[in-house]
Amino acid sequence: MIAIAITLLILEVDVPKPESPGTLAHKLAEQWPSYAAYFVSFLTIGVIWINHHAMLRRVQVVDHSVLIFNLLLLMLVAVLPWSTALMAAYLREDAGQHLAAAIYAGSFLAMAGSFYAMQRHLMQRPELLLPTIGPDERAEVRRRNRAGLLPYLVAVAAAPLSSYLVLAICAAVGIYYSLPSVTRAPQES
Amino acid sequence: MIAIAITLLILEVDVPKPESPGTLAHKLAEQWPSYAAYFVSFLTIGVIWINHHAMLRRVQVVDHSVLIFNLLLLMLVAVLPWSTALMAAYLREDAGQHLAAAIYAGSFLAMAGSFYAMQRHLMQRPELLLPTIGPDERAEVRRRNRAGLLPYLVAVAAAPLSSYLVLAICAAVGIYYSLPSVTRAPQES
Amino acid sequence: MIAIAITLLILEVDVPKPESPGTLAHKLAEQWPSYAAYFVSFLTIGVIWINHHAMLRRVQVVDHSVLIFNLLLLMLVAVLPWSTALMAAYLREDAGQHLAAAIYAGSFLAMAGSFYAMQRHLMQRPELLLPTIGPDERAEVRRRNRAGLLPYLVAVAAAPLSSYLVLAICAAVGIYYSLPSVTRAPQES
Amino acid sequence: MIAIAITLLILEVDVPKPESPGTLAHKLAEQWPSYAAYFVSFLTIGVIWINHHAMLRRVQVVDHSVLIFNLLLLMLVAVLPWSTALMAAYLREDAGQHLAAAIYAGSFLAMAGSFYAMQRHLMQRPELLLPTIGPDERAEVRRRNRAGLLPYLVAVAAAPLSSYLVLAICAAVGIYYSLPSVTRAPQES
Repeated sequence: MIAIAITLLILEVDVPKPESPGTLAHKLAEQWPSYAAYFVSFLTIGVIWINHHAMLRRVQVVDHSVLIFNLLLLMLVAVLPWSTALMAAYLREDAGQHLAAAIYAGSFLAMAGSFYAMQRHLMQRPELLLPTIGPDERAEVRRRNRAGLLPYLVAVAAAPLSSYLVLAICAAVGIYYSLPSVTRAPQES
Repeated sequence: MIAIAITLLILEVDVPKPESPGTLAHKLAEQWPSYAAYFVSFLTIGVIWINHHAMLRRVQVVDHSVLIFNLLLLMLVAVLPWSTALMAAYLREDAGQHLAAAIYAGSFLAMAGSFYAMQRHLMQRPELLLPTIGPDERAEVRRRNRAGLLPYLVAVAAAPLSSYLVLAICAAVGIYYSLPSVTRAPQES
Repeated sequence: MIAIAITLLILEVDVPKPESPGTLAHKLAEQWPSYAAYFVSFLTIGVIWINHHAMLRRVQVVDHSVLIFNLLLLMLVAVLPWSTALMAAYLREDAGQHLAAAIYAGSFLAMAGSFYAMQRHLMQRPELLLPTIGPDERAEVRRRNRAGLLPYLVAVAAAPLSSYLVLAICAAVGIYYSLPSVTRAPQES
Repeated sequence: MIAIAITLLILEVDVPKPESPGTLAHKLAEQWPSYAAYFVSFLTIGVIWINHHAMLRRVQVVDHSVLIFNLLLLMLVAVLPWSTALMAAYLREDAGQHLAAAIYAGSFLAMAGSFYAMQRHLMQRPELLLPTIGPDERAEVRRRNRAGLLPYLVAVAAAPLSSYLVLAICAAVGIYYSLPSVTRAPQES
C-alpha cells in the first residue's frame, strides 16, 4: 500500500497546457515547487517503506494493536499525495506558505510518529518478535526511531519562518537516511 | 485490491487553489466534510481489510462461489472513493444531504453485507476451511459478522434525519472495531 | 496489476457538483450510463482476473513469449478505464454512440483475444505446464477460451445497431461467466 | 510498484467531451499522440518490469545500496505517466516539441541508467548473488544492460531534430526488446 501512495504522488504534478502563454521551458520552470515537493515526498515515503520492510522481517506474530497501528500509519502515508500538492501550490505564496509548510512537515511528523509508536509497541513485546532479536537490538531500534522524529519536529517549528526552509530540512532528512553511511548489515532478500 | 481502493480515497480530497478568495486556513477549514468522510471511509475499509485477511487465514480451498463473492465485495469496496466524495460534497447541502448520506451508509451496508454473505458461505462448508476450525468457531464468526450489519442498517435509517448523524454513526462503528478491547487472540503473521 | 485497473475504473464515475442545477436524485439518475458501464467492465475484468489466476496455477515455467503475451494482456486491461469512460459518455449520443460501443466491445474482444493467444501458446507447450495437466485438459482449456471470444465478436458486430444492445450483450457475458453453474472443481487457494 | 505506474498511464489519456465540436471519430483521431505515447511508454516500462523480475531472481541478499538504487529506479518509473502526458501534449507543437521530446527520452534514459547502475552494483558483488551466477554471466548482464543505454542516448540527441523521430526511436527500442528473437532460456515461474 505504501507502494501505491508513492506512485500516486505524480498525479499531483501538472502537465502545462500547450495553449497557455509562454514557452514550455518557462512553464516547466515555473512548476519547480511541484518537482521539489515530489522529490522530497518520494524520498521520505521511500525511506519509511524500506524501514517498514525491515520491521516486518523482525516480527513473528501480530496482535490486534499492531494491525491498527499499521492501519494508522498507512492512513498517514496515504494523505501525503494531498499534503505534497498543498505544499507545492503554496510554497511561493506570501499568505498560506507557513500553514502549508506546517501541514507538510506535520504530515511527515505524524507518519514518523505512528511508525515509532508501532515499533515501540513491538519492541516492548519480545513474544511478537523473532527469537533472534535480543534486548540490545530492541533498545537500539527504539532509540533510532525516536531520534528520527526530531528533525521533523524542527521542520514543523520552522514553518513560521519560511516554507523554503521547511522543504530544505525535509529534503536533508530524506537524503541523509538514503546515504550508504547509514547502512545496516546485509539482509536476506 | 482493498489496499488500492483505500489509497485512492485521498484523490477525492481537493487542494484549495491559491487564486481562490480567502486565507488558506479558511479554505482548508471549509473542507472539513472531506476530511471527516475520508477518515471514516479509511477506517471502515481498514477494518474490512483486517477481517478479510483473518478470513483468508481460515480458508484452505476456494470454490467458484467464493471467488465471485470476493469479486462482489471488491466491487463494493472499489465504489467507496466515489460514495465518500459524494458524502463530502453534499453533507452540508439542505437538498441532497439525505440522499447522499443514504448512499454513503448504504455502500457500507452493502460492503458489510457481501462480506457476511461470503463468510456465511464459507462457514457452512467446513470442507473449504482449515481442519482446526471447529463448529463453535464457525458459529461465532457468523454471529459476529451478522451483528456487524446492524449499525449500518441504523445508519441508513438515520439518513432522512441528518447526514451529520449518519456520519457520526459510521465513525463510531469504525472506531469501535479498531479498539484494542475488541482484540482477538494473537495471530501468526 | 489487473487489481489496479479494476480499482481505477471508479475514478471515471463523476460526483455531481452541488452547484449544478437539479436535485441530487435527478443528477445521479442522469448518470446511469456511468454506473452500467462501470458494472459491466468490473465484472468483465473480474472474470478475466479469476481466469488469469487459474491459468497461472497450471504453469510451471514461463518463456519470453509468455511474458510478452502477459504484458500485452495487461496493456489491454489497463486501457479499459478509458474505453469504459468513453462508452459512458457517448451511450446516449445520437452521433458517436456506435463508434464508442464498437471501441468498448472491441477492447473486451482484444483483451479476451490476447488471453486466448497466451493460453493457446501455453497449451501447445506441455513442457511449460505442471505434469498433471494432460492432453484432454489442454484441449478443453483451448476450446473454452476460444468459445469465449464469440460473444464479443457479436457485441462488436452489434455496434452499428445500438450502443444499448452492445452494453446488454457485454453485461450478459459477464453475468453468465459469474454464475455458479459455470463452476469448475474446487481449487486449492 | 512498477505495476502501478504502468496502470496509471491510462489516466493521462483523455476521453473527448460529447459537447465539444466535431464527430467522435474526428476527436479520437486528433488524440493519436496520446495513444502513441501511451503505447511506447507501456512497452518500455513493461520491458524494464520483466528485466527487474529477472534481476531479482539472481539476487540472494540485498544491501542498503540496492534498496536505494531500487528506490531511485522506482522514482524514475513513477515519473513516466507525467513525461508521457507531456510528450503527448507537445508532440505536434512547433514550440515545445523539442523540449518535451528531450524530457521524454531523457526520462527513459534515466530509468535505464538507474537500472544499469543497480545491475552493475550487484554484478560486482558476487556475495549478493545466487552461487550459480558465475563471472561470465555477470559480465554478460553488465554488457547487455550497458548496451541498452545507447538507443536512449540517440533518442535524446534526436530531440532537436524532431519529436516524431524521438518517439519512433523509443518505439523501435521497446518493440525490439519484446521480440522472441531476444529470448533467453526458459525460466522457472
